[in-house]
Amino acid sequence: MSLLFTNHVGHAIDTVAARLKPSGVFVVADVNTANLLLPRVRVESSALTDAKVVTIKAGEMFKNIDTLGAVWKQLGDLGANRRSLVVNFGGGVVTDLGAFAAATFKRGVPFVNVPTTLLGAVDASLGGKTGINFNGLKNEVGAFADADTVVVSTVFFRSLDSTQLLSGYAEMVKHALLDSPEMTAELYKYDITDYRDDTLLELLRQSVAIKQRIVGSDPRETTGQRKALNLGHTAGHAFESLALSRQSPLPHGYAVAFGILVALVLSRMKTGFPSDALTRYTAFVSECYGTFPICCDDYATLLATMHHDKKNVNSTEISTTLLADVGRPLTDQAVTDADMKAALDIYRDLLHLA
Amino acid sequence: MSLLFTNHVGHAIDTVAARLKPSGVFVVADVNTANLLLPRVRVESSALTDAKVVTIKAGEMFKNIDTLGAVWKQLGDLGANRRSLVVNFGGGVVTDLGAFAAATFKRGVPFVNVPTTLLGAVDASLGGKTGINFNGLKNEVGAFADADTVVVSTVFFRSLDSTQLLSGYAEMVKHALLDSPEMTAELYKYDITDYRDDTLLELLRQSVAIKQRIVGSDPRETTGQRKALNLGHTAGHAFESLALSRQSPLPHGYAVAFGILVALVLSRMKTGFPSDALTRYTAFVSECYGTFPICCDDYATLLATMHHDKKNVNSTEISTTLLADVGRPLTDQAVTDADMKAALDIYRDLLHLA
Repeated sequence: MSLLFTNHVGHAIDTVAARLKPSGVFVVADVNTANLLLPRVRVESSALTDAKVVTIKAGEMFKNIDTLGAVWKQLGDLGANRRSLVVNFGGGVVTDLGAFAAATFKRGVPFVNVPTTLLGAVDASLGGKTGINFNGLKNEVGAFADADTVVVSTVFFRSLDSTQLLSGYAEMVKHALLDSPEMTAELYKYDITDYRDDTLLELLRQSVAIKQRIVGSDPRETTGQRKALNLGHTAGHAFESLALSRQSPLPHGYAVAFGILVALVLSRMKTGFPSDALTRYTAFVSECYGTFPICCDDYATLLATMHHDKKNVNSTEISTTLLADVGRPLTDQAVTDADMKAALDIYRDLLHLA
Repeated sequence: MSLLFTNHVGHAIDTVAARLKPSGVFVVADVNTANLLLPRVRVESSALTDAKVVTIKAGEMFKNIDTLGAVWKQLGDLGANRRSLVVNFGGGVVTDLGAFAAATFKRGVPFVNVPTTLLGAVDASLGGKTGINFNGLKNEVGAFADADTVVVSTVFFRSLDSTQLLSGYAEMVKHALLDSPEMTAELYKYDITDYRDDTLLELLRQSVAIKQRIVGSDPRETTGQRKALNLGHTAGHAFESLALSRQSPLPHGYAVAFGILVALVLSRMKTGFPSDALTRYTAFVSECYGTFPICCDDYATLLATMHHDKKNVNSTEISTTLLADVGRPLTDQAVTDADMKAALDIYRDLLHLA
């Protein structure tokens, strides 16, 4: 799998096509990216000039078996074969579903992922995780399949609003916290809502390199090292579900940002994570993401979600990822319900929630 | 991937379970094998005692996306997770579809294949090819995924009629022809319709070892060596399609047996394949499989099918696998329409077809 960081996406795709010499190129995109973003890439790519476009409906709710079948069918009807090249062009839904479709069509067609959102670029494009939602569960079905190439670019981010930018940025900050104080400090300083293409591309390169290093140590989630990437996702997922049940969805990255705060509080309680690092992160979250309000009455619901999470085998404790310090992740840390409630209390104190 | 040749299937599954220590065991079977064959395996296996059974409808027509979704759903509803073990118990439809479902459920659950037909044991159980039919095409969608273990046994073959036995046997003879004159002579002598468990299990071991060697040289169908296994499948597939259009389906192995005859005639014409080896094979096919009648008027249809086959990129010639001699496969051999028609003429002569 190769990673290209460039703001000349069309040229990058041409480079891949020149190497693979596909019998045909097929772009998978949702209706929005196909209409709004694809045309500008097409004009600078000869490989895309005659490409056929497989469009899907936009949105997480269409990341399902029906859309998967529709993509398989369109690939077949449009004449795709094993020597074709599939280009998945869009956000996480498109890259997850398009990659799964490509990985299984005729038992595998080479594919390129071109994430068009910051969250997709930093999170969904790398790691070989492809899939769809099924039976009411996220990514219930899928495959580990590496893209031939992931083309990471910032040129599409002009179309994102600040919420989408901040949502992706939370995953970059997570990577920094897993990596080093230096990288973390750099991201605290940076203002993602006022980014410049070149500097952001360089930050993305560093952020993706961190994920690549962790994934490379555990490509199929078998040794456990990859669980470091779950930092903030235990409480984060529970916040996301709670927000959904309140009918006011929380963007994934926001949930992760708040979830990391809970994880750092737990780390302070249990592993000696430094007080000043917790204070600094609290200030960052508060400034950029505001608050996610919870009260004591929510604890039972939140804990039930955490226990139900597939990552928690043992039902009396919650297994989660903590930090001994910035850059020192500890996976498989057992947390009791009492610990978690205490951490949620402190989370509320830190964010001045009643 | 490990291969176990044993007539104690329940014990073999227990051995796998003792090693993997799954959180639960899930059997995928069609209604026939679940009712008729599974009970006798269950009584000799402690791992299967509490196993949950996912049943699918029997038959090639149900090897589709709806059945795949139904298996995913049942696995989820019954509580399967990544530490579960899936046991695919049945013929080629069950092992192909069940393995694809297991390989993609939660991005991959370990699975064991237990083929219950001779064709499945010799052909479908090995090689990592999983999948379903889609959009009117066989195995249009799937994945390369190796079983943890394939348990090959002859105990289920008592339930097969002679047509099913001979259908599987054709693939064994194909392997022998790819391998050596000795193995081929041994199979010509053997009477599959009057088999003994022990001797057949030993022959199966040798036959599967041949396939394993060829697959091992080209696991993902990228270098071309695996195409040797297509011997007899060019004309064979065309015969199969023609029989379907006549509304009298030809079992796959029969189509392959007749297709091999055409391939050996072409080999005689183009590569110096020995005359006596062709004569001997003709006698074998004629005795065991009878004839598949074709006439000149069928040639256009047969050739159209061969050209349409995905294996033939170049439309002016048909690329196929021939033999220089028994045990000496030659892949990617170009055959013109005139060559093929001449071979079909000789095929008819050899089988005394008008």
